[in-house]
Amino acid sequence: MKYKRSERLVYMTQHLITNPNKLIPLTTYVDKFSQAKSSISEDIRIIKDVFNAEGLGILQTTAGANGGAMFIPKISVERAEMIISEFKEDLESSERLLPGGYLYMSDIMGNPKMMNDIGDLIATMYGGLEIDSVVTIATKGISLANAVARKLNVPVAVIRKDNKVTEGSTVSINYVSGSTRKIETMVLSKRTLKEGSRVLVVDDFLRAGGSITGVTNLMEEFNATVVGVSVLVEAKEVANRRFNDYTSLLKVSEIDEFNESFVVEEGNCLDYITGK
Amino acid sequence: MKYKRSERLVYMTQHLITNPNKLIPLTTYVDKFSQAKSSISEDIRIIKDVFNAEGLGILQTTAGANGGAMFIPKISVERAEMIISEFKEDLESSERLLPGGYLYMSDIMGNPKMMNDIGDLIATMYGGLEIDSVVTIATKGISLANAVARKLNVPVAVIRKDNKVTEGSTVSINYVSGSTRKIETMVLSKRTLKEGSRVLVVDDFLRAGGSITGVTNLMEEFNATVVGVSVLVEAKEVANRRFNDYTSLLKVSEIDEFNESFVVEEGNCLDYITGK
Repeated sequence: MKYKRSERLVYMTQHLITNPNKLIPLTTYVDKFSQAKSSISEDIRIIKDVFNAEGLGILQTTAGANGGAMFIPKISVERAEMIISEFKEDLESSERLLPGGYLYMSDIMGNPKMMNDIGDLIATMYGGLEIDSVVTIATKGISLANAVARKLNVPVAVIRKDNKVTEGSTVSINYVSGSTRKIETMVLSKRTLKEGSRVLVVDDFLRAGGSITGVTNLMEEFNATVVGVSVLVEAKEVANRRFNDYTSLLKVSEIDEFNESFVVEEGNCLDYITGK
Repeated sequence: MKYKRSERLVYMTQHLITNPNKLIPLTTYVDKFSQAKSSISEDIRIIKDVFNAEGLGILQTTAGANGGAMFIPKISVERAEMIISEFKEDLESSERLLPGGYLYMSDIMGNPKMMNDIGDLIATMYGGLEIDSVVTIATKGISLANAVARKLNVPVAVIRKDNKVTEGSTVSINYVSGSTRKIETMVLSKRTLKEGSRVLVVDDFLRAGGSITGVTNLMEEFNATVVGVSVLVEAKEVANRRFNDYTSLLKVSEIDEFNESFVVEEGNCLDYITGK
């Protein structure tokens, strides 16, 4: 296929961004376009500069015979601020308060554009760490885990609270739910997570942290290392939280069921991005 | 921002493919790049031609004052064949047979690259229809629903088999599981799906079709129209299936638990793509 530079750039841009965190050897493009390596290198440089200037991510290039390019989704601080402010506006906007002080968030978890943006944001926070798998708890966390895992190019492992026969042999633990104080069970199929993996844990909502503590205990059974915990929303006023080391996009407080009101503010994830 | 054509093409390519099924007015790019509309139109034409030649999707353009471009993920038959053959190889490869004739598929559902490819494939089959929402059943179908919904640019509605308090008021139905003959319950939050929606139903596995029949009954409660049903894998030898109008990527048959063997063949989705 003999393409001009402009045409090569279209192909290479889509190819790189649809294969994040994967090293594409320059030879892939040299062969595909029957072009000299120097021309392809120049193409890559153009893409890299635009991604930089627009805050779309980093195009990491490696030189030498095995040289190549890898697209790393890393958004700018400005873009991160925009994503959080959109999310905040959405969370504040409609009547989300449910009995028991819960927030209705299924529309947010089911919004692919918002999940995609938030996936970019969380991948930016944790993309520098070595991560083998994104772990979450069924059902609500799955959409978020998918969005993050796609950007990091790693698999998702879904922990369930019911033991279904259809996943083969499992490891389970009991834990105390921080909110209800009930003893519950958490189950992960043995085949879903490799022993000794480095995992990023994501979930939709953090209250007392009983579930996340449960996840970290379950991870020990897999000899896994939890390299980070990130949640979309945390309830701000929870005392005695069992888990302190995490990032959140938003914080909710002053939940008043009677007046159907609550206050939303930014979580700590921007500190995490700017502090890097 | 004053960019050269090559630089504009990088930006516009990434912008179009990360906003599928959304009309981007040409003025967006005219304003961003301070360029004449004729130059931007020429940029769009270059992107369109490369997408066409490479089978990456369709760039639909509309002329006039409100003219713009919309990226429609529509893969070529060759690419569809490749995705199905990769999926088939993966499903055949490892020891997937579980007690009861179930297949272990969590690794496939948790593989973001494979879900992305299959999302492209299913979006290609149903992208021509007017669809308001992708509907699935927790837990296994969620990753697939996310992948398809992202390509179609519509929300996901997740039906649950347990009634959690955290989703507000719900509609539920009872249905008979085709495999176990037990009566089970299916629940969908009222706020998750608009009355009168046109929905595409996706799921990981189709056996007797009791769940899918349940979904279609539940959709009636929402006055929704089921415009299609698509599953990753169907069990071929099930008699008395309650549901006939669906597409599947793969068919599994001759499941032999004693010898731990089964046969995988292509489903009907390629006919669906080529027949269009």
